[in-house]
Amino acid sequence: MIFFIAHFFVYICLYIIIYMEKFEVTILGCGSALPTTRHFASAQVVNLREKLYLIDCGEGCQLQFRRSRLNFSRLNHIFISHLHGDHCFGLMGLISTLGLLGRTAPMHLYAPHTFEEQFRTQMDFFCKGLSFDVEFHPIDTSKHDVIYEDRTVTVYSLPLRHRIECCGFLFKEKPLLPHIRKDMIDFYHIPTYEINNIKNGKDWVTEDGTIVPHHRLTFPADAPRSYAYCSDTCYLPKLAEYLQNVDLLFHEATFAHDNAARAKETFHTTALEAGKMAAACHAKQLCIGHFSARYEDENVLLREAQKEFANTILAKENLTIQV
Amino acid sequence: MIFFIAHFFVYICLYIIIYMEKFEVTILGCGSALPTTRHFASAQVVNLREKLYLIDCGEGCQLQFRRSRLNFSRLNHIFISHLHGDHCFGLMGLISTLGLLGRTAPMHLYAPHTFEEQFRTQMDFFCKGLSFDVEFHPIDTSKHDVIYEDRTVTVYSLPLRHRIECCGFLFKEKPLLPHIRKDMIDFYHIPTYEINNIKNGKDWVTEDGTIVPHHRLTFPADAPRSYAYCSDTCYLPKLAEYLQNVDLLFHEATFAHDNAARAKETFHTTALEAGKMAAACHAKQLCIGHFSARYEDENVLLREAQKEFANTILAKENLTIQV
Repeated sequence: MIFFIAHFFVYICLYIIIYMEKFEVTILGCGSALPTTRHFASAQVVNLREKLYLIDCGEGCQLQFRRSRLNFSRLNHIFISHLHGDHCFGLMGLISTLGLLGRTAPMHLYAPHTFEEQFRTQMDFFCKGLSFDVEFHPIDTSKHDVIYEDRTVTVYSLPLRHRIECCGFLFKEKPLLPHIRKDMIDFYHIPTYEINNIKNGKDWVTEDGTIVPHHRLTFPADAPRSYAYCSDTCYLPKLAEYLQNVDLLFHEATFAHDNAARAKETFHTTALEAGKMAAACHAKQLCIGHFSARYEDENVLLREAQKEFANTILAKENLTIQV
Repeated sequence: MIFFIAHFFVYICLYIIIYMEKFEVTILGCGSALPTTRHFASAQVVNLREKLYLIDCGEGCQLQFRRSRLNFSRLNHIFISHLHGDHCFGLMGLISTLGLLGRTAPMHLYAPHTFEEQFRTQMDFFCKGLSFDVEFHPIDTSKHDVIYEDRTVTVYSLPLRHRIECCGFLFKEKPLLPHIRKDMIDFYHIPTYEINNIKNGKDWVTEDGTIVPHHRLTFPADAPRSYAYCSDTCYLPKLAEYLQNVDLLFHEATFAHDNAARAKETFHTTALEAGKMAAACHAKQLCIGHFSARYEDENVLLREAQKEFANTILAKENLTIQV
């Protein structure tokens, strides 16, 4: 019996650790404006300790969300980078579906301020009597600013340069709690209910009044992690100043560098430039996406980015990346 | 050499015959409002002699269109049955894509008149500077009326009853030309350039002045074919009067009959009722679709409809049905 209880306890602890540590990004779509049979339009989900944040919502996003087996009910925040259709045409479908599923919790939508009136008009027409509120948070895309914050994460806007106003998003985890030292806990017979207090900085006082400082009872916390989403934009070297040491950088790489003129003209980035950006940021990993429909084999783009930044991967639908 | 030319001629003739005869329906999506991993939202393409007509345009329609390998440039007419999102949320994406593909020919959109203002607002916001015009043709969904006509087909609206105003569509092929009798053509040495005139009713006059009436030179034409799309609607027996002897009837069958109360409440039809409708129409074939997400195995619906109308099939994505 004790054996089973002990096992159960270990599983619960493992679950809590995994749950508390989770910071991953799932790509729902990484094509560009022209749809192909290989890619959906832009959409991805940040999963930070089982709270989901949707970035962009291209057509088919809700279908991909369902395929990814992510839980709709854990999604409370949607961030829209800009108002080209391939980044937002899935929004009304997703909101309608959440209504059909009986959602009551408010949804928070962060999007360029110019979208608010259009969004309200569409909501009034298509979603009359919706079972939940959608709170619109206008973004000033010209600023690098905090646009959302809770106790685990701060989300910043990243001013990008595209054909219309556009911003990226930087997810910065808040400082984590230190790890508890099990040997010290056992040694001082510290009860379980005190562990969280110690992690949060409380010292331990033994029965004879000796003060054991909390830092002797813990190992240092892991460094907070960060994720940056930069799409759509022309190559913007000064962006690197906001993104120093970012753990994962998603950067658009619509074209290969032999199409640099076309990239410049359409305010997009080449794979080579995306690699340069990751290097300038001292990023740990780069994921490139928003591929032009012309590339049947995107390894051309991968190899090009890797010339500048070795730890590059290609985005693809249903790929989940640990931050 | 002559052998090759003869072969080439035969192939050309065969191609023309197939092309002239084609009347088929391709299902792009046949789910209902809640998306599943099995189905896309409502959309289908009528291909009548290589002219394409889109009926409804749910989210993901353009992706499915591309997957079906149908040619975007042959699409000039879009018919929207009603303004629930699962029947029209793919419209802006499709129009944007056609713009990106450089389309210049006008597109004709037939939809309930209440949509016009909302549609124009969305177009102004998302599709400024589009390379082609979209001409909006308002439909009065309460009437059975001709809403489109060309030299091969007449499209009628079919007043349906749903939670919002809604109509179905009846595609009626115009009378076909008779088949030429090759034996008679050879017998009278009639030159090829006269064949079309004879099919269109011209008699042949031999060198000695004998009149050979055109009906002696031809076999009777095939009966014109028809296709009816009825979704979304509650069971509406009086609809049968417009659909007598229809070749192919697509009818929604959102629920099985044990959910008849739910069907009535939401203004949908059960599979049993769809079967009854096909029988009352003396249809040649019934295709049921718009399946509720609750049915993992839609054969339940198929068997139920087949009790009333044996020649029933299930809609599924990428299925093409000959009318």
